[in-house]
Amino acid sequence: MRKPKIVILGAGYGGLITATRLQKMMGANEADIVLINKNDYHYETTWLHEASAGTLHHDRVRYEIRDVIDRSKVEFVQDTAVEINKEEKKVILEKGEVSYDYLVIALGAEPETFGIKGLKEYAFGIVNVNSARQLREHIEYQFATYNMEEEKKDERLSIVVGGAGFTGIEFLGELANRIPELCHEYDVDFHKVRIICVEAAPMVLPGFDPELVNYATSYLERKGVEFMIGTAIKECTPDGIIVAKGEDEVKEIKAGTVVWAAGVRGNSIIEKSGFEAMRGRVKVQPDLRIPGQDDVFVIGDSSLIINEEINRPYPPTAQIAMQQGEVCARNLVALVREKSELEAFKPDIKGTVCSLGENDAIGVVYGKKLTGSKASFMKKMIDNRALFMVGGPSLVLKKGKFNIF
Amino acid sequence: MRKPKIVILGAGYGGLITATRLQKMMGANEADIVLINKNDYHYETTWLHEASAGTLHHDRVRYEIRDVIDRSKVEFVQDTAVEINKEEKKVILEKGEVSYDYLVIALGAEPETFGIKGLKEYAFGIVNVNSARQLREHIEYQFATYNMEEEKKDERLSIVVGGAGFTGIEFLGELANRIPELCHEYDVDFHKVRIICVEAAPMVLPGFDPELVNYATSYLERKGVEFMIGTAIKECTPDGIIVAKGEDEVKEIKAGTVVWAAGVRGNSIIEKSGFEAMRGRVKVQPDLRIPGQDDVFVIGDSSLIINEEINRPYPPTAQIAMQQGEVCARNLVALVREKSELEAFKPDIKGTVCSLGENDAIGVVYGKKLTGSKASFMKKMIDNRALFMVGGPSLVLKKGKFNIF
Repeated sequence: MRKPKIVILGAGYGGLITATRLQKMMGANEADIVLINKNDYHYETTWLHEASAGTLHHDRVRYEIRDVIDRSKVEFVQDTAVEINKEEKKVILEKGEVSYDYLVIALGAEPETFGIKGLKEYAFGIVNVNSARQLREHIEYQFATYNMEEEKKDERLSIVVGGAGFTGIEFLGELANRIPELCHEYDVDFHKVRIICVEAAPMVLPGFDPELVNYATSYLERKGVEFMIGTAIKECTPDGIIVAKGEDEVKEIKAGTVVWAAGVRGNSIIEKSGFEAMRGRVKVQPDLRIPGQDDVFVIGDSSLIINEEINRPYPPTAQIAMQQGEVCARNLVALVREKSELEAFKPDIKGTVCSLGENDAIGVVYGKKLTGSKASFMKKMIDNRALFMVGGPSLVLKKGKFNIF
Repeated sequence: MRKPKIVILGAGYGGLITATRLQKMMGANEADIVLINKNDYHYETTWLHEASAGTLHHDRVRYEIRDVIDRSKVEFVQDTAVEINKEEKKVILEKGEVSYDYLVIALGAEPETFGIKGLKEYAFGIVNVNSARQLREHIEYQFATYNMEEEKKDERLSIVVGGAGFTGIEFLGELANRIPELCHEYDVDFHKVRIICVEAAPMVLPGFDPELVNYATSYLERKGVEFMIGTAIKECTPDGIIVAKGEDEVKEIKAGTVVWAAGVRGNSIIEKSGFEAMRGRVKVQPDLRIPGQDDVFVIGDSSLIINEEINRPYPPTAQIAMQQGEVCARNLVALVREKSELEAFKPDIKGTVCSLGENDAIGVVYGKKLTGSKASFMKKMIDNRALFMVGGPSLVLKKGKFNIF
């Protein structure tokens, strides 16, 4: 009897939880499990703002996939998925192809630039390990260059962060700590540096408790961050950005660094492969499969789940991706064992904490509002928990955050 | 009775030795001593290749001037000399001016680009702390960017070093050690990296013992350095360099980084102030004064001393600058005390060691040829000696090189 073949695309939070749960639940003879990922490492997407600001080394935010998978049960293939051929049940990879009986698409998000001119060319992103260290090096290079020029260009020291959502605010928190270090390192006057957050929406951290948002903005403002709320980026240029407040007030802000942290969309492979999607996200069935595709699951940032309390989609988070990975693994086991009932996924939002740098944060955990060191402690526990869920205590010891007091 | 005023321009090797020797030899009431320097720190010019490659932090190659001068005897002014008005016996500074009875010009060298097109705009230099850290950051940025691009540009990882003199070879030695670290840091395949040394002269390290030169080139070649000797850089562009071997063979070498390490000239203030000079270097009298200028000394890289054995100028080195500083200080004391006899400067070349990275070097010390760890040890002792001469044992302990085995 031929073993069914399960192919998991992506070793982010969702894909890696699926793979590690499957290797626990399945016998070696029950299924062939293949995990395909572009890199040989997993990275913590939710820690990238630290690597991007330079407050945490990029090797601290990643670990090797082979260290957490059981290679007697899961075959790891380092390759990049290009397209899914759902009729022939195979995935086209850059270096080959692989057929599947069951497919899990866990490929994560892509930056969404909303067609704003110049963003792709001139703005940096907080997207993966490669982009994070490039951004860190770019900022350092700006500081290193400042004193080399006869005519000092102060705008070289200006950093624009587009977006006051989760990633934008967390990055600002790290930057606020990093800038004084950079000033010291490169003999730059702190007062020459500007950090400007530009957000098109009328508020910071939409959906967050207003009291906590106030805490965050005043904390960041005290550290030197300027907020331009209700202000849209119209264009990004090699010299900075063009913004508009309302229709008329068009203004140029010169900046040596522009970071785009204002939104993600699902993976482009979804639409390329002919699956119906909204901004690359598939509205999945309760069992996490694509409607009409009984052999294809989508989890993580490319899946769309509606929060029925407010009739809006849940934002894509690591928390949801990991919970989906667990349900997806159980449903795959059920399919392989030919059970007819599949489990319905229901997010269990334990809390949300937005870090404001090393020692401060805001958050709601189990319904309780937290700020300061308590929130910061919770954030690190959340980060450690993600490690624990994938790799157990040994991974927490290796990669965890213990600078908690 | 008015105290004579001694003004020292520059706190490099020569200026700082002059100042620290004067503060030992002179009573507080004998003279006003003013030391003027652009930065509030001294840096080790001969260690800059390490900071530029990133093998030594730039804070390790500098120390604060106020830590080594006796402020009861020497007044330190942080300012930049613009021009010398020898008729009115004053120095125009960026932020003011200062008059002198005796002047010591110890302003160091400037890069000489021989009019090669594009070098000033597109090539990096190993000139001071600012340039060193900019170069380090530039190289890191190239490596950080490599994996960010869909279409990999291997030339981004090519580093051209123009010049196979002392600075060029020492920088190559550091780079050869640094590149494997950078490859590891940024997930770059070592075989994609090229380090190319381009030298117009028909040899590496002209004037050095040929056997030692062979040792150096084969050592560096084993570590991956390519030498293009007898090859002139015709132009530097944003994409790399154009070289010519002979008259016809013109070729483009694409490179993300071009470093110009092929020559220095005296400080431009010399010519600007109307002193006779060759490439900014003044052929000084044996007592180190400018011919016809009984109150102006020139020491260090802007002074020209002929080696009579070979009838050619001594190359500008830290060793000579420091020895000149000692003689200059004694001659200033003699002038202030109205002695008629001034001492004649005679270089005492104890040896020359060219480092090839952390653990290797070539050199001639007291007439003996050295290679490998012995030469490397001597190099570190020479570096420590420079610290000792300025700041005694405490400065050696603070900034010295003790990784000697």
